[in-house]
Amino acid sequence: MRVRHKPWAAEKLAEHPEYVVTELISQKGKWQESFKNEAPIHIEVGSGKGQFIVGMAAQNPDINYIGIELQTSVAVTALDKMLEAQLPNVKLLNTDGGLLSDYFEEGEVDRVYLNFSDPWPKARHEKRRLTYKSFLENYETIMKPNGAVHFKTDNMGLFEYSLGSFSQYGMIIDQVWLDLHASDFEGNVQTEYEEKFAAKGQPIYRVEAHFSTK
Amino acid sequence: MRVRHKPWAAEKLAEHPEYVVTELISQKGKWQESFKNEAPIHIEVGSGKGQFIVGMAAQNPDINYIGIELQTSVAVTALDKMLEAQLPNVKLLNTDGGLLSDYFEEGEVDRVYLNFSDPWPKARHEKRRLTYKSFLENYETIMKPNGAVHFKTDNMGLFEYSLGSFSQYGMIIDQVWLDLHASDFEGNVQTEYEEKFAAKGQPIYRVEAHFSTK
Ligand SMILES: C[S@@+](CC[C@H](N)C(=O)[O-])C[C@H]1O[C@@H](n2cnc3c(N)ncnc32)[C@H](O)[C@@H]1O
Ligand SMILES: C[S@@+](CC[C@H](N)C(=O)[O-])C[C@H]1O[C@@H](n2cnc3c(N)ncnc32)[C@H](O)[C@@H]1O
Repeated sequence: MRVRHKPWAAEKLAEHPEYVVTELISQKGKWQESFKNEAPIHIEVGSGKGQFIVGMAAQNPDINYIGIELQTSVAVTALDKMLEAQLPNVKLLNTDGGLLSDYFEEGEVDRVYLNFSDPWPKARHEKRRLTYKSFLENYETIMKPNGAVHFKTDNMGLFEYSLGSFSQYGMIIDQVWLDLHASDFEGNVQTEYEEKFAAKGQPIYRVEAHFSTK
Repeated sequence: MRVRHKPWAAEKLAEHPEYVVTELISQKGKWQESFKNEAPIHIEVGSGKGQFIVGMAAQNPDINYIGIELQTSVAVTALDKMLEAQLPNVKLLNTDGGLLSDYFEEGEVDRVYLNFSDPWPKARHEKRRLTYKSFLENYETIMKPNGAVHFKTDNMGLFEYSLGSFSQYGMIIDQVWLDLHASDFEGNVQTEYEEKFAAKGQPIYRVEAHFSTK
């Protein structure tokens, strides 16, 4: 996503340690401690401007949410939403979701959300897709046994690819939606990208899949 | 599919044993013999009016095709296409695809095609869907190890269901198409239903999945 560079963004993130965690490696294995409870931890990789992760935290007070966003100038908008919502169960990491196992312990996470991840349509960029097998390996490592990935996108090519990638990795596909907004799915929290694409009339695809322990 | 009843259809089928096999159980384990070659056997369950199975046989002379269609009045139209095409590598069975293992030996079949299968949208009819687990069990039994199912449909609900059903059964999803006619898939042979739905602008879904031996 191309965004206006905000030179002050890093500084603003640093001013709010109650929402934005910067000392990542020392947090490994201690995320529930930092939330001061024993609720399950759900993370979103590529959380963008934060509408989903903050909305989910508001909807589900008994779950701890962590949004992970690489771009500082985007993450700062998610911080604004957190400052406004004042929820105890959501945090933000301005870092690379490719390095999850550096700052999450094995089995520390219960669920991974991927929403409107960059499609990387060229075959030579396959390895950059957040549903490529090396990423799945990372998710599996930090999740509890049978942990699930919930993935939404408007991108047909990425969705087709991801169904195959999940299955070929050994994950089990629990449910598929080929037009989420026309379905009877309840409690959907829309992301910024989702609102934009749905307004254009594009179907939103969704899948829930879990890692298999057998 | 509602069709005009054709009282003469059964008789016409019986008149063409070179295409329509009626002594099914005695054929078990001897299908290659009846084709007089050792080419792989691909079957279609619910072959309808036969455009797909006859078209595939014309396109792939090194493969033996068997169409299985329950309704006599529909099967007779497929026979007409066979009589016209005069191909040695296609046969028709006017029987129930739910009983495959009665007339195919274990490992006798290389691939199963399902095209525009009846959707049975009501939850209480799940067991009738040709992608329900009891049908998958039958396909697995009569196929070679790692045998594949290739499934096309316009029906979103049935396609969503089938992806989950395949995966939960333990099959591996090799590739998914969410708009087959807009894709670069080559050599697609359209079925009668496919032509009808595509003409209305509906996307055609397709999946290739195989049974896993691990
Ligand atoms: C297309 S945007 C979607 C944002 C948001 N999920 C939504 O649906 O509105 C993808 C986001 O993922 C972020 N991203 C891409 N790769 C990432 C990575 N390896 N780690 C963290 N964030 C990443 C990008 O910076 C971008 O903000
Ligand atoms: C919706 S039609 C599609 C026909 C064709 N495949 C096409 O795409 O044009 C489904 C067909 O499957 C047949 N069928 C349904 N259940 C069957 C079964 N258990 N065994 C054989 N044929 C079956 C029906 O009689 C019908 O002709």
